[in-house]
Amino acid sequence: MLHAEIIAIGSEMLTPYRTDTNSLWLTERLNSIGIEVKFKSVVGDDESILEEAIRDAMKRSEIIISTGGLGPTEDDITKKVFSRVLQRRMVLNDAVLAKIQARFARRDMKMPEINSRQALIPDRATALENNNGTAPGILMTDNKCIFVLLPGPPREMKPMFEEQVMPKLRERAGDIVLLRRQLSIFGLTESGVDERAAPIYKTYKNPTTTILFGKGQIELHLTAQAKTEAEANKLLDELSGKLEIVLGDNVFSLRNQELEEVVGELLSFKQYTLATAESCTGGLLAGRITEVPGSSEYFKEGVIAYANEAKVDLLGVPNRLIEKHGAVSPEVAEAMAIGIRRRARSTIGLGITGIAGPGGGSDEKPVGLVYIGLADEIQSSSRKFMFPGDRQFIRTLAVNAALDMIRRRIR
Amino acid sequence: MLHAEIIAIGSEMLTPYRTDTNSLWLTERLNSIGIEVKFKSVVGDDESILEEAIRDAMKRSEIIISTGGLGPTEDDITKKVFSRVLQRRMVLNDAVLAKIQARFARRDMKMPEINSRQALIPDRATALENNNGTAPGILMTDNKCIFVLLPGPPREMKPMFEEQVMPKLRERAGDIVLLRRQLSIFGLTESGVDERAAPIYKTYKNPTTTILFGKGQIELHLTAQAKTEAEANKLLDELSGKLEIVLGDNVFSLRNQELEEVVGELLSFKQYTLATAESCTGGLLAGRITEVPGSSEYFKEGVIAYANEAKVDLLGVPNRLIEKHGAVSPEVAEAMAIGIRRRARSTIGLGITGIAGPGGGSDEKPVGLVYIGLADEIQSSSRKFMFPGDRQFIRTLAVNAALDMIRRRIR
Repeated sequence: MLHAEIIAIGSEMLTPYRTDTNSLWLTERLNSIGIEVKFKSVVGDDESILEEAIRDAMKRSEIIISTGGLGPTEDDITKKVFSRVLQRRMVLNDAVLAKIQARFARRDMKMPEINSRQALIPDRATALENNNGTAPGILMTDNKCIFVLLPGPPREMKPMFEEQVMPKLRERAGDIVLLRRQLSIFGLTESGVDERAAPIYKTYKNPTTTILFGKGQIELHLTAQAKTEAEANKLLDELSGKLEIVLGDNVFSLRNQELEEVVGELLSFKQYTLATAESCTGGLLAGRITEVPGSSEYFKEGVIAYANEAKVDLLGVPNRLIEKHGAVSPEVAEAMAIGIRRRARSTIGLGITGIAGPGGGSDEKPVGLVYIGLADEIQSSSRKFMFPGDRQFIRTLAVNAALDMIRRRIR
Repeated sequence: MLHAEIIAIGSEMLTPYRTDTNSLWLTERLNSIGIEVKFKSVVGDDESILEEAIRDAMKRSEIIISTGGLGPTEDDITKKVFSRVLQRRMVLNDAVLAKIQARFARRDMKMPEINSRQALIPDRATALENNNGTAPGILMTDNKCIFVLLPGPPREMKPMFEEQVMPKLRERAGDIVLLRRQLSIFGLTESGVDERAAPIYKTYKNPTTTILFGKGQIELHLTAQAKTEAEANKLLDELSGKLEIVLGDNVFSLRNQELEEVVGELLSFKQYTLATAESCTGGLLAGRITEVPGSSEYFKEGVIAYANEAKVDLLGVPNRLIEKHGAVSPEVAEAMAIGIRRRARSTIGLGITGIAGPGGGSDEKPVGLVYIGLADEIQSSSRKFMFPGDRQFIRTLAVNAALDMIRRRIR
C-alpha cells in the first residue's frame, strides 16, 4: 500500500482563524484508491521550515502533496522551495503564460506583471491546468517520490486533483480498493441511530463503520477494502442493506446527497412544484433549494416575510390570526404555507416562522421555537420544533427540518 | 520571541472526517502571550513516525504541545514515545492513581485495570490534573524545550491548558505581545491589492503582513509584536492607516466583519431599510443579510422571483421589458429593484437577475452573467458582472457584489 502526506502551506494557516480542510477531501480521494495518509503538516511562509518539512516527508512517504502558496505574490514560496529541494531550475512556460493572459483578457483586464511569475514551472515537471484560477499546479517525480503541488482554494484544487492527478495515482496504487458508502440519515438522534445500527455493524470487520453527527443530520460511513471494486461493492451492499432495514425511511440518501438534492429529485420525478414563505430563516431555505442545478424547473417562487405587514400583504395571512396567536404560531406557519401555495399556484407550499435569536425570545416563546407549515392540494398541517444553539445553528436546523418535511410528504 | 508547535496525535485525525480544531484554540491562547506557532502536524498511532516528529519539532521550536493519545488503551502512545525520546523512565504516580480511582468510585464504578496505565508519569515530569476526564496531562522540560502533553477532548484539554499551563508559559514568554489586525477588502483583485499595498507593507518588518484571498474578498492580516498592547496597537495603527489611504473605500472593515455586518451597521446608523428581489441567487442574499442578529430592524422583506410571472406579479416588472430585453438584462434588474422597493416601502431596493448555470447560458448571455439593480428615493441604476466558476461560486460572488453595492451606496 502506498503512503501519502499532505503539507498545507501559508502563514494564514497558522493563525487561529483558518483550519486545513483541503486535506480532508484529499484524504477521502486518496483512500478511495487505496492510498493511506500517514502524516499531515501545516507550514507558514517560511522557506527554511518548508524545506525541512519536505525533506522529512521524503523520508516517510512516496506521495507528497502540498496545498497553497502558488499565488503570484512574494510570500507564495511553494514552487521555489520544492524546486530547491529537488534541485530543479524554474523555467518560464509560454503555454501557461498565454493561458493566464487569456484568463485576464476574457474579463477585459490586462494581466498584472506580477502574475507572470505563476508561469514559472520547475524543470522536468508537468504543469497542471487550472480552469478556475490563475495558478497552475505542478506534478513532478524523482526516483522515489511523486510530488503534487496544488493551489489552496478548494474550487481550484479539487477539479485539478480529480481530473489531472487521480488518474496518475490510480495507475501507481495497484490493486487495493478502498470503497466508501455513506448512509445519510435524518429524523433520529445519534444514540437512536447507534442503538439500531451498532448490533449490526459491530459484527463486521470489513466494512468498517464510522458514525458522524452534524447539524441534525447523521452519517454512517462504511469503508470496505477489497481487491476489486465489484468485491468491495458486494461487501458494502450486504451491510448497507441490513442497516437500511433497521433505519427505515430515516435514510434519505446512499449517494452522499444533500437533503435539497433528494427533495429536488422527488419533486422532478412527481412533477410537483414548490414555493416557500420564510420568516426566521430569511431566505436560507430558498437558497438551499435553488443551490441544486435545474431547480428552476420545480421551484416557483419564495417570499421572505420578516415584517407582519409582509405576511398579511404578500401571503394573505389574516391579520386576526397574527393578533390572536402571534406571528410565531402553528396557525401562522400553516397560513403562510397556504398563502404562498395559492400565490405561486404550486403543488406544495411551505411556511416557516420562529425565533432565531439572540433577541426576541420570551418564557412562553423562547429562542429556538420554530413552526413549519406545509400545504398541498388536499391538506395542510404544521409542526413545532425547539432547536438548540445559536442563531446560525437554529436557522440551519430549521431549514433541514423543512426540507425533511417536504421529503416525507412527497415520498 | 518563543516559538511553539502543535502535534495532534491519533489515527482518527488522519481520516477524512476529523480535523484538528484544538490547535486553533491553542494558537489563539499562545499568540495572546506573544508565543508564535511555527508548525503544526497530525500523526497517527504510529510510534516511529511520532518519534521522528518529536525530534524534528525539537530542532525548530522551544515549546512542543501535543494533543491526544493519552487514553488507557494500547494505541494511546503519546507518553511512551515522548518518554523514549527524552530518555525518561515511566513511574507509577500514587497520587494520580488515587485520583483516577476516586473518579470511578464517585460514579460507583470500579476502576478497570487498564486505567492504571494512565497513572504512569515520566520521571521528573509534572502531572497536570484533569478535572474533566481520567487522563492526566504532562508537563516536562529539558535543557532547551518545554513539552506539554494534553488530552484530546477539548473540554478536558482547554481548562487544563488555561489553568495549569498558561501561567508557566506566561512566565517564560516574558513581556512580548502579538496583536493582529485584519483589513477586509472588496472591489480589487489580489494582484491589484498587492500592487498598491506591497510597496508600503514591505518597508515594515513589524508588523508583518499576509494577503488572503477568498470568494472575491481579500484580507490583509497585519501582526505586530511589542512589549505592551498599547505599543502593538500603535504599530498597527501606523501601518493600517497608510494602507487604508492607498486602498480607499475598498476597505470595508478593520474588525474582521463580514460584508453583511458592515451593511447592517450602515443601514442601522442611517436608519435606512432594505428589501431584496432575487432571481439567480434564490434567497441567498436575503439569507446572508438576515444572518446578522437584529437584521429585522432594517430588512423589510424579500422576494425570490424565479419565474417570469413572479417578476411581473410580485414585483410589477413590466411584461414588455422582459419580452424586449429578456429576464437577464440591466433593465429588468433595475425594474426588480424599483419594484421591491415600492412594494416593501423600503429606503433601498435591490434586484438580482442572472445565469448561475450550469444550464441556461447562450453565446449572447453566458453562464456567469449577472445584473444587479439598486434603487433608492432619488435614483436607480444597474451593474453588469461576469462571474467565473460553478453555480455555487457564481451565486456567492453575486451576493457579495450586491452587498458591496449596497455598502457603497450608503457610505
